[in-house]
Amino acid sequence: MDAICNKIRTSFSKQGFMKTLGAQLENIDRGEVSISCSLNEGVSQQNGFFHAGVLVSICDSACGYAALTTMPLEADVLSVEFKINLLRPSNCDQILAVGTVLKAGKTLTICEGEVKDKDSGKLLAKMTATMISIQKNG
Amino acid sequence: MDAICNKIRTSFSKQGFMKTLGAQLENIDRGEVSISCSLNEGVSQQNGFFHAGVLVSICDSACGYAALTTMPLEADVLSVEFKINLLRPSNCDQILAVGTVLKAGKTLTICEGEVKDKDSGKLLAKMTATMISIQKNG
Amino acid sequence: MDAICNKIRTSFSKQGFMKTLGAQLENIDRGEVSISCSLNEGVSQQNGFFHAGVLVSICDSACGYAALTTMPLEADVLSVEFKINLLRPSNCDQILAVGTVLKAGKTLTICEGEVKDKDSGKLLAKMTATMISIQKNG
Amino acid sequence: MDAICNKIRTSFSKQGFMKTLGAQLENIDRGEVSISCSLNEGVSQQNGFFHAGVLVSICDSACGYAALTTMPLEADVLSVEFKINLLRPSNCDQILAVGTVLKAGKTLTICEGEVKDKDSGKLLAKMTATMISIQKNG
Repeated sequence: MDAICNKIRTSFSKQGFMKTLGAQLENIDRGEVSISCSLNEGVSQQNGFFHAGVLVSICDSACGYAALTTMPLEADVLSVEFKINLLRPSNCDQILAVGTVLKAGKTLTICEGEVKDKDSGKLLAKMTATMISIQKNG
Repeated sequence: MDAICNKIRTSFSKQGFMKTLGAQLENIDRGEVSISCSLNEGVSQQNGFFHAGVLVSICDSACGYAALTTMPLEADVLSVEFKINLLRPSNCDQILAVGTVLKAGKTLTICEGEVKDKDSGKLLAKMTATMISIQKNG
Repeated sequence: MDAICNKIRTSFSKQGFMKTLGAQLENIDRGEVSISCSLNEGVSQQNGFFHAGVLVSICDSACGYAALTTMPLEADVLSVEFKINLLRPSNCDQILAVGTVLKAGKTLTICEGEVKDKDSGKLLAKMTATMISIQKNG
Repeated sequence: MDAICNKIRTSFSKQGFMKTLGAQLENIDRGEVSISCSLNEGVSQQNGFFHAGVLVSICDSACGYAALTTMPLEADVLSVEFKINLLRPSNCDQILAVGTVLKAGKTLTICEGEVKDKDSGKLLAKMTATMISIQKNG
């Protein structure tokens, strides 16, 4: 898992968009990865809450990296599709997205993701996602 | 439509996250709204392409505003859920998201969204979304 | 819950399609309903396994009835949308679909559903669904 | 296309579930397949309309076969996932599901499907689906 953790941390640090969001890679376990984000004006929608796109972005990344923990070290991952249900307005200070592998496969890995209010643990959104393993080119 | 256009432009300008993305509100027609975004490091994933979360964020906003054009002036809109299929890597300079109303209802409005390479017109992603009309509070 | 159980059992018995599938209403708890189905040629696809449409149909019904357990007695329920990931071929004798309420609301209720091989408990499919409460007419 | 049409017609005729529904394979074109179904008690829900599961089942099959028209003759196809938005109650005599390929790939093919009232052409439901190409065994 050490090499995979390093691979994920390096990949995360190369994502300009995660920097833009101020997102933090929290935990990496086999089949489960979590990412958090703090509220600021730059991630808000018109009412000052987290924009749904922010929840989706960190949850998609958490699911993708969770899938990556179950793949060979040389694999890379792409999102094929995902769906998210937004259960409540995200009017909180910090959100935590946890991506979990439901079924790991050679080509496709199916994940589910939950986004919670980090303080209260209240469920804000639920995602299911299909990830595809690809060979890294370079 | 003038009052609705103004309402949408005002709402868009209040979304800190759209500013963060450098997203531009392009067109507003009854039942169809488009939003564009230019590539820069702050919206990229680890390979330098647009992050899927960026496509999703502007496409969700385009769908939400498209729904708003079919609702009474005093209504506001929230995303209930959406699903997106990512068809190709977004290695282009500009993306254009077009949200279109499939079925307008009193409570729920169903939209579809397409994200394209703005130059070539190539389809990058396809979304379907459920929007709910809510009464603005204040 | 007794009146709600009766309402659900009556509604289930009126669904010609559930009869066609030979589906059985298994359990009704507040926020959770399960439905099973046995394999026969009439529910099979070209390889003799359960057709994906059968999994979806009983899982959608299980989610809808789960939503109904959290609504007022006079309410009825309609599926707004659902998404399902099919994780494995359903080459088993019996399937069990369990629908669970993730978030109950006045208008919308969000559910998740799991379809399992009834014998082994292996997860075959995962659904998320949006249900809307409507007033019964007659 | 003749060999592919034959392959699809043979596969369709082996689906016990399509027989159960009384579904008819209507048209096969490259990238587009349509399937219809007539209302009868055996495909109805509690109000006598088409059960959502019936729409989904024929639309999933239409999408799968549409994908198959773009694949090598020896390939078979499985549904990875699909999502459907149900736009209106299906209180009509006949429904027509049309599956169309959005993006054909070597491994994955993304389709969209529409279910309409066959007489009025009114849109009843919209699906997006991910199909995977597999090698036939036997």
